Amino acid sequence: MDIGFIGLGNMGAAMALNALKAGHTVRVWNRSPDAAKPLAEHGARVVASPDEAFAGDAVFSMLADDAALRSVLLDSGLLERAPKGLVHVNMATISVAFCEELAGLHERHGVAYVAAPVLGRPDVAAAGKLNIVAAGADDAIARVQPIFDVIGQKTWRVGTAPQHASVFKLAANFMLASAIETTAEAASLMTGHGIDPHAFLDVITNTLFPGPVYQGYGRMIADNRYEPALFRARLGLKDVRLALAAGDAVNVALPVGSLVRDNLIDVLAQGDGDKDLAVLGKVAARRAGKKV
Amino acid sequence: MDIGFIGLGNMGAAMALNALKAGHTVRVWNRSPDAAKPLAEHGARVVASPDEAFAGDAVFSMLADDAALRSVLLDSGLLERAPKGLVHVNMATISVAFCEELAGLHERHGVAYVAAPVLGRPDVAAAGKLNIVAAGADDAIARVQPIFDVIGQKTWRVGTAPQHASVFKLAANFMLASAIETTAEAASLMTGHGIDPHAFLDVITNTLFPGPVYQGYGRMIADNRYEPALFRARLGLKDVRLALAAGDAVNVALPVGSLVRDNLIDVLAQGDGDKDLAVLGKVAARRAGKKV
Amino acid sequence: MDIGFIGLGNMGAAMALNALKAGHTVRVWNRSPDAAKPLAEHGARVVASPDEAFAGDAVFSMLADDAALRSVLLDSGLLERAPKGLVHVNMATISVAFCEELAGLHERHGVAYVAAPVLGRPDVAAAGKLNIVAAGADDAIARVQPIFDVIGQKTWRVGTAPQHASVFKLAANFMLASAIETTAEAASLMTGHGIDPHAFLDVITNTLFPGPVYQGYGRMIADNRYEPALFRARLGLKDVRLALAAGDAVNVALPVGSLVRDNLIDVLAQGDGDKDLAVLGKVAARRAGKKV
Amino acid sequence: MDIGFIGLGNMGAAMALNALKAGHTVRVWNRSPDAAKPLAEHGARVVASPDEAFAGDAVFSMLADDAALRSVLLDSGLLERAPKGLVHVNMATISVAFCEELAGLHERHGVAYVAAPVLGRPDVAAAGKLNIVAAGADDAIARVQPIFDVIGQKTWRVGTAPQHASVFKLAANFMLASAIETTAEAASLMTGHGIDPHAFLDVITNTLFPGPVYQGYGRMIADNRYEPALFRARLGLKDVRLALAAGDAVNVALPVGSLVRDNLIDVLAQGDGDKDLAVLGKVAARRAGKKV
Repeated sequence: MDIGFIGLGNMGAAMALNALKAGHTVRVWNRSPDAAKPLAEHGARVVASPDEAFAGDAVFSMLADDAALRSVLLDSGLLERAPKGLVHVNMATISVAFCEELAGLHERHGVAYVAAPVLGRPDVAAAGKLNIVAAGADDAIARVQPIFDVIGQKTWRVGTAPQHASVFKLAANFMLASAIETTAEAASLMTGHGIDPHAFLDVITNTLFPGPVYQGYGRMIADNRYEPALFRARLGLKDVRLALAAGDAVNVALPVGSLVRDNLIDVLAQGDGDKDLAVLGKVAARRAGKKV
Repeated sequence: MDIGFIGLGNMGAAMALNALKAGHTVRVWNRSPDAAKPLAEHGARVVASPDEAFAGDAVFSMLADDAALRSVLLDSGLLERAPKGLVHVNMATISVAFCEELAGLHERHGVAYVAAPVLGRPDVAAAGKLNIVAAGADDAIARVQPIFDVIGQKTWRVGTAPQHASVFKLAANFMLASAIETTAEAASLMTGHGIDPHAFLDVITNTLFPGPVYQGYGRMIADNRYEPALFRARLGLKDVRLALAAGDAVNVALPVGSLVRDNLIDVLAQGDGDKDLAVLGKVAARRAGKKV
Repeated sequence: MDIGFIGLGNMGAAMALNALKAGHTVRVWNRSPDAAKPLAEHGARVVASPDEAFAGDAVFSMLADDAALRSVLLDSGLLERAPKGLVHVNMATISVAFCEELAGLHERHGVAYVAAPVLGRPDVAAAGKLNIVAAGADDAIARVQPIFDVIGQKTWRVGTAPQHASVFKLAANFMLASAIETTAEAASLMTGHGIDPHAFLDVITNTLFPGPVYQGYGRMIADNRYEPALFRARLGLKDVRLALAAGDAVNVALPVGSLVRDNLIDVLAQGDGDKDLAVLGKVAARRAGKKV
Repeated sequence: MDIGFIGLGNMGAAMALNALKAGHTVRVWNRSPDAAKPLAEHGARVVASPDEAFAGDAVFSMLADDAALRSVLLDSGLLERAPKGLVHVNMATISVAFCEELAGLHERHGVAYVAAPVLGRPDVAAAGKLNIVAAGADDAIARVQPIFDVIGQKTWRVGTAPQHASVFKLAANFMLASAIETTAEAASLMTGHGIDPHAFLDVITNTLFPGPVYQGYGRMIADNRYEPALFRARLGLKDVRLALAAGDAVNVALPVGSLVRDNLIDVLAQGDGDKDLAVLGKVAARRAGKKV
């Protein structure tokens, strides 16, 4: 396929590279051009404007947040100039409201819009093992499936309304942050009783809670080490806020989400926003009077 | 081995039966004697008083709560009359404070005390697949290991202080109830956006959250069916309360636990205390304005 | 003075009327013109556009929310066309971020900006007894003080940064909503113990908590009557959201605010958003299993 | 009247002294006898055992908590030996469950039981200005009213079931702690925006929230000074716990109470349990990243 790729952060670059390696033609653009260089070495065509990326069979975007995407895509008039019939696949996590707005605007301008946020961190992206949660018109998804197949281990089709993919992703990250918070509290209870949290984690992850979340984040909490950050607390807070907003819009409260949000604000207030999301363990420990 | 077994509810009866099937001699006692009959058919010797169960190599107890155990063991003077050198294995979930008190009293009366609460519901107990979290003197645990081996798939040794096993068990159930609450909130978010929660659960349990907890309880929430109860909400609340008390005793708050406790009080106020713990999903749905 | 007045809801109309009664010249404008008629009978000059209100010595605005003010003032280009040296007094409760944005824009366009949100409901506004929380340039406030003196019982000067008045107002309404929530919970505790909440309120409002808040909202809770609404739950939620956002912007969590927000979302989900803010009492009662 | 008085802490001693000054005969007893000396100088008859205090027209008790009262009154057999027809007035804050238990036991032993917890701190007790919340048999309260009249400014009769007085007192202290928490959060919001919290308190206590609670505790928060303690955080936590237990017993959650409890556990974990209850302000400030 001939695709454009916009947004070459850790995640975006890894996905674009996998598309390249699979033999696809990839035109890449990034606001700061340095990020495109390593991809050029693998055959990517570095373009000078997002307009040049919005061409070919499809364009993929992986920008930081609502504001970045709005700036590149809407404020610049790019979407209005985009070729009719192009498929735009947005893989970033954005707000449900903005996703819905984008769906409408794309339809008006004759561009197919697929929302395809992913589950997985940069190492998983590099391995091509992401889980892709995709929503949009069936034929549009079908057209980009070859790319999904090389950047993800599985594509989860969750309907034709793009914003539903956003709801899925935000709910998943809300559950992730909540599981970390709960683990942090349990670890703090262990420490309070003079028990090594590693021993508790060993039991729990081999019985009730298998899988990478409790194991990976749990170890960081038990080790009381929150760097290097695989998923920064600041970004986790962003997603929890968006999940709360998605609930608020339809009169659904997420009380555990509210609590996690408040603890993540505490994280930022302590200057720990760039540590890993597991740093919720530090909040719990500090509130229990432990020196951390 | 020649063991006694006190407390023949769903869990206790299943464990006693597995001991019988493995060829051990089991003297059983239950407050209401009917519960002992099915075991008699499998060769159990039904005894008329708990004193007769406190004999042989070891005695196992699985009574409903602190009050029941206190009544049978302490108020009656049973512990004082128990043969020196006997091993008493308490498999029920009791408070950390009472567990610590019991450890001291057993020591004073020359009886070995092993706290061995289990992870798993009645169906798991029947299959002999429980996870046993055991704490107590090493030699005492070693002596009862043959019984553990037939009622559980694995014994997790968590130290010599019996109350540590209680902390483990309560923290595990706190995490369980918190995971259910979080799932309930996420499911409610899906419904609010017109998305079938089953679809979301399918993604989440095949990616971030494998394992039986999110699958089993998640399905009850998505189905909005909370009967038959495998783990009653009333008992879940009991354990969350004990986890909070265990934290309070060492100045550790469990904020998610407080929130879950308040929602479980709501469950009881609606008359749903005997439904499954997954009924937290009904609270979330009702608060989001859904008819349930 | 010769003033303009934009936004003639319950609050705005009452304030404009008091200015008229005190002999000031008042040009009034409202999106739906019917609201202006009763004021015309008291001598107001009804103008056909907000531009005509933005003239004379000063203009006062009391529009519903950020969006309404943005639409009338910014999207229309009105602020750019406003006469240099005019004082614009915004008495509505808006977000801290928007208030800060407005302060900057007014400065750029040579219009003095005074933020002057008020404490008090429509009946208090009608009586000219509002408490006005004013922030802005000292001379600008001094120029409009004669109007403040007839619409309020007291002007609280809280500095020269307009957004500080917004923080004050939002914090006050956050505290108001929190006090109502707490009263609702206490009343529910009374009912649960078979005690008439009126008796408890009688004690509490004559001892620890004198003043109109606990008395007025408390009586609605004890009576379980939430209509007519003096302060609608929907508007209370709006303010709590803005208070949370004001905190989030400076890394300050308001955990009680998060909890109140979640309960107000429950209110809206039940279709009670247009009932009085005291309807938090209904949430507490329903969650305690009472028929309400 | 001829009364006994048991428990001569700050509160009890002040009340006993006022009874003495009014000319009543007062036999006083305290576990550590030193506390009785200052009263002896004012004419109190110091007795050697609680039995000697349980005589005359009535006996008043003001012991620290459930355990202290249980020890002195029940474990010792004192209640069984008490003269029939005596009135026992318990002015301490105890749990609702224990109050109900005591009501039953007193009835069985022919002693009238009046629950009469008080609102007010030691300085208020010294001034004879307490608010007394009394529940019990009407004739029993009538008999001790002369004493209430000299130790309090007003007696609030709240029915004949003694435990109802306990519910009132605990709900009042729950509301007090919640108001402090809310004030702490609002003050933290001010600081975050560079606003002096004193200015905000000045507005709020002269408008929405008059009265001593917001003024007194608010000033401690704004000053960031939590000593000397007028109401120790440790005791506030005790009462919040009892309020939560009173709710739990009748399936009523107090979500704000749960949140306050968790913050007070944080207070104790930091070693601040003996500071004033207003120290909740320190928790809020610390969580917002302020050096405190």
